[in-house]
Amino acid sequence: MTLLETVHGPGRLGELTARELDALAGEIRAFLIDRVSASGGHLGPNLGVVELTIALHSVFDSPSDRLLWDTGHQSYVHKILTGRAGGFDRLRKAGGLSGYPSAAESEHDLVENSHASTALSYADGLARADAHLGVRDRATVAVIGDGAMTGGMAWEALNNIADGPDRPLVVVLNDNGRSYAPTRGGFADHLAELRAGQGGAGLFGQLGLAYLGPVDGHDIAALQDALRRARETRGPVVVHAVTEKGRGFSYTEDNELDRGHAIRPMDPLTGLPTGRSAGPSFTSVFGRELTRIAEERPDVVAITAAMLEPTGLLPMQRAFPDRVIDVGIAEQHAVTMAAGLSLGGVHPVVAIYATFVNRAFDQLLMDVALHRRPVTFVLDRSGITGDDGPSHNGMWDMSVLQVVPGLRIAAPRDGTRLAELLAEAVAWEEGPTLVRFPKGPTGEDLPARATFAGIDVLHRTGPLDVLIVSVGALAGTALRVAEVVGTHGLGATVVDPRWVTPVNPALADMARRHRLVITVEDNSRTGGVGSTVAQFLRDTGVKTPLREFGIPRRFLDHGARADVLAGCGLSPQDIARTVVEEISAGEATEDRAADRLDDGMVRLLKQASRGEIR
Amino acid sequence: MTLLETVHGPGRLGELTARELDALAGEIRAFLIDRVSASGGHLGPNLGVVELTIALHSVFDSPSDRLLWDTGHQSYVHKILTGRAGGFDRLRKAGGLSGYPSAAESEHDLVENSHASTALSYADGLARADAHLGVRDRATVAVIGDGAMTGGMAWEALNNIADGPDRPLVVVLNDNGRSYAPTRGGFADHLAELRAGQGGAGLFGQLGLAYLGPVDGHDIAALQDALRRARETRGPVVVHAVTEKGRGFSYTEDNELDRGHAIRPMDPLTGLPTGRSAGPSFTSVFGRELTRIAEERPDVVAITAAMLEPTGLLPMQRAFPDRVIDVGIAEQHAVTMAAGLSLGGVHPVVAIYATFVNRAFDQLLMDVALHRRPVTFVLDRSGITGDDGPSHNGMWDMSVLQVVPGLRIAAPRDGTRLAELLAEAVAWEEGPTLVRFPKGPTGEDLPARATFAGIDVLHRTGPLDVLIVSVGALAGTALRVAEVVGTHGLGATVVDPRWVTPVNPALADMARRHRLVITVEDNSRTGGVGSTVAQFLRDTGVKTPLREFGIPRRFLDHGARADVLAGCGLSPQDIARTVVEEISAGEATEDRAADRLDDGMVRLLKQASRGEIR
Repeated sequence: MTLLETVHGPGRLGELTARELDALAGEIRAFLIDRVSASGGHLGPNLGVVELTIALHSVFDSPSDRLLWDTGHQSYVHKILTGRAGGFDRLRKAGGLSGYPSAAESEHDLVENSHASTALSYADGLARADAHLGVRDRATVAVIGDGAMTGGMAWEALNNIADGPDRPLVVVLNDNGRSYAPTRGGFADHLAELRAGQGGAGLFGQLGLAYLGPVDGHDIAALQDALRRARETRGPVVVHAVTEKGRGFSYTEDNELDRGHAIRPMDPLTGLPTGRSAGPSFTSVFGRELTRIAEERPDVVAITAAMLEPTGLLPMQRAFPDRVIDVGIAEQHAVTMAAGLSLGGVHPVVAIYATFVNRAFDQLLMDVALHRRPVTFVLDRSGITGDDGPSHNGMWDMSVLQVVPGLRIAAPRDGTRLAELLAEAVAWEEGPTLVRFPKGPTGEDLPARATFAGIDVLHRTGPLDVLIVSVGALAGTALRVAEVVGTHGLGATVVDPRWVTPVNPALADMARRHRLVITVEDNSRTGGVGSTVAQFLRDTGVKTPLREFGIPRRFLDHGARADVLAGCGLSPQDIARTVVEEISAGEATEDRAADRLDDGMVRLLKQASRGEIR
Repeated sequence: MTLLETVHGPGRLGELTARELDALAGEIRAFLIDRVSASGGHLGPNLGVVELTIALHSVFDSPSDRLLWDTGHQSYVHKILTGRAGGFDRLRKAGGLSGYPSAAESEHDLVENSHASTALSYADGLARADAHLGVRDRATVAVIGDGAMTGGMAWEALNNIADGPDRPLVVVLNDNGRSYAPTRGGFADHLAELRAGQGGAGLFGQLGLAYLGPVDGHDIAALQDALRRARETRGPVVVHAVTEKGRGFSYTEDNELDRGHAIRPMDPLTGLPTGRSAGPSFTSVFGRELTRIAEERPDVVAITAAMLEPTGLLPMQRAFPDRVIDVGIAEQHAVTMAAGLSLGGVHPVVAIYATFVNRAFDQLLMDVALHRRPVTFVLDRSGITGDDGPSHNGMWDMSVLQVVPGLRIAAPRDGTRLAELLAEAVAWEEGPTLVRFPKGPTGEDLPARATFAGIDVLHRTGPLDVLIVSVGALAGTALRVAEVVGTHGLGATVVDPRWVTPVNPALADMARRHRLVITVEDNSRTGGVGSTVAQFLRDTGVKTPLREFGIPRRFLDHGARADVLAGCGLSPQDIARTVVEEISAGEATEDRAADRLDDGMVRLLKQASRGEIR
């Protein structure tokens, strides 16, 4: 029996000798490499915190003491030590272990959020609650990476934590010198000084916080010593632990840059990915096309918030190293700095995950749009991302951002459209633009059979029964819906407006000539594209009924993207069933819109359906 | 002729002697007290930067050099020195001078945003643009207050500015020790050390930035000297200027706390407000009611982001000084810290302006709602605020926030409803709640004539023609619409759902029985309450047509609230006209819904209209 098999909860750690704890660390590291290689997941960050997590659970008494994991992907070792090793076979699978802390899984998990830089604020709230309620002798511990410290809300929290000299709160700074890639900026340089022992209490001391360290983050005994001293401090204290991301694993060239930050399933010996590739991703097409645009336009620069490789900017950075700016985990700064670049005569392209643009909504609205700055936003991981769970889904972007005056939003359905729309976006000089696409492969191109006032007609058969307005990467679903309703004898037109905000006015004519309009989007139904198309049709007096298909107003559990979409009623079969029911219900009372085939647009659609227009 | 009358642009300053510059400062101070007392506006901040602004314009060459004003309300002196003194008679009036920088007014204005902590990010972008384009010998200067430095994006910017040791950028820290009220936290304590000359280059030095100061911010010669040295620095540098907010004015008790931060029109000699009061404001009712709730519920605490008095928390703070937390200008931290308080067993009430909650959208979504924390948000200044211009309007809150799963949103129409809904919100334990109301007086109470499934019926006359769904403080407008359509022989029902998100399902039955539904909200039409009510009616198969009235998708210039609303088509006359036209147009084709008076709800409405139910 291994030591690991004897650990069913953190209480067991107190019974182990120092030598056994070291052995346990080795077992956990091997376990992580084995399991995460098979499942995919955040390997590098967790290999870096094996000893730190053991030390934390041996010094603090979870769940009475609270351990908070900033950017929860560093919680795998914590999961193992709190009785969940058995769940790693189904890590990030539907119904299986979440890739982040989860209160539903364990009383040892409090904060489920995967967004960085939040743990110190939670901890400040918990510490203040204890003070307010008179609770004593309970520790609050927040583990935060050096990369997350570049996020502004961590600064806001430190400033507040320092304002409570009597409130115990332990900040464990997990300093591995990187987020995805090496951390940049004045703070990173300062940490390097502290690591070298040259900074005293440094910036933390200037803020009035106690400081312990630097501590070797792979020396369990040294960590335990520092954490015990921190626990005895009756006020806020920073423990500076220096760790090595991805420790214990040999990396291939592919994952050296980010130290195996988030891996796909791979061979644990060679580090080479297992399984076949599904063709080029939206991300890679974006990276290639942006680099091409940058060759033609010397005024184009790219901005990333600490996600150079995941957002596809590596090719651009290789070609133009001075024209890619990594601001750290600092979305707010990224967006307003982009407005400044634009004021200065440069065209910025801000590449960001959809879920993280929410961090900079105010800046996009006020600093970019109010100032009519031509900044291009590129949102990767829009819609359902799936296995990263509720806080990585980018399913609110179009609802939230379509309120922004002057912002134009494009949703490419395939690689060719991404290339086209990105070029159109960067060429637009009247205000901000946004291009959004999901995680994953672009799939086969879905060419337009005709284009009418900027709206691509993808499909046209039979009578003018249903107009399917497809948004972005759900075009394949929309086409399949058309097929299925065709088997019920209904005609369908599938169109892709490409630019979804503002609403293309030509949709009114198209809608008027059909008996039903449906919209299909991988975005919140509430306030989504469908909702706004419906409003536009009301405003223009179009009476054709509309049904919108999108994501319901709830948080979605992790699972494969296709399964999660189907769970939201976004399978072609479910959509087609509703269409057939709606049209049957309307049969008795409505005119046949097909009787009104009387103008050029409809002729165009009919020509398109005969393949006369390409 | 005064010196001030000779200054038509910043170039003139170079011709004045040191003694004349001092005299000019005195004239500007007298001018500000005179004009801003008459018009209302941000007096205190501008009295504090008279000498600093003179020094800036005498050392730097605007607009070639760029002067950026963080939290633009400190730009009045800048406006005076750039030829706009004549406009102060119409400060913050429609068509008159904006209370913030405005590119439409002057080539000397770049950043129009009134939200704090953005200037350093703009400046970083401008400096990077110069570097990218090879522009030299142009200075970029950002003036930022110590209060704004508590905002996280300022930290993100400092971290990035420090990352460009070769990019010239002057940060002028306007340190008056306060935002509205005295600045709190570790950073404020650190600045106090620096002011005392005890900190060396302090935290700025730790980040790798050059530091000059502290400098007396009212000594023009000393400021000029420091700014000239900063200008010669070929990299980023912080000039620490110590100023006195409200310098030169004697305050009454009413405005001592915030040093005349933003004043209403008043007598310049006595500091007493001129004009009569318009009755209690929503803000004051909130403050009174929260204090009452706090007396009953010891677990309730309040949070403000540096706006204790403007958000109405002063009574609560006086009654329970330990139960009001001021986090600084740090909305992100405020919200996530509230989630932490809630996890710790405390019920937090976050009081914030609607326009500033946009800063914490991600935190509200992820840290509060995903974790189902019963945090109460109270949004003041929702809808049109008017004289503060486009970046103070809170006109997107319901559109953006209604996507948040589990969030319940209430919009009280008057003081009594605010008291009721606040109590209901704080009592709700299943997840977050939000109560939103506008700036200004509550007006007379508008009692319900009946209440049906939680929906207040405010008015019912004539046939069941139009159902007017009134949102919040526009109830008076809705009632007036009912009157006007009544003069055209149309019947109207006015209802107030009180809780607008999620949609009250009883609206379906009500809507079904009318010939037209309209919604009236002081919020973006795009993705607004009306849009979502329409979606709900579609989902439930209600065929009654709906028209939504709200704010169009554009930024609105400053002006009086009523005028701005009318400019958006939200006057009772404009709305009523549309209603009459819509119903006339539908006359020929639609059934008289009034023929279907067949159930209890309608009986109730009829009883209500006869005054049988109160």
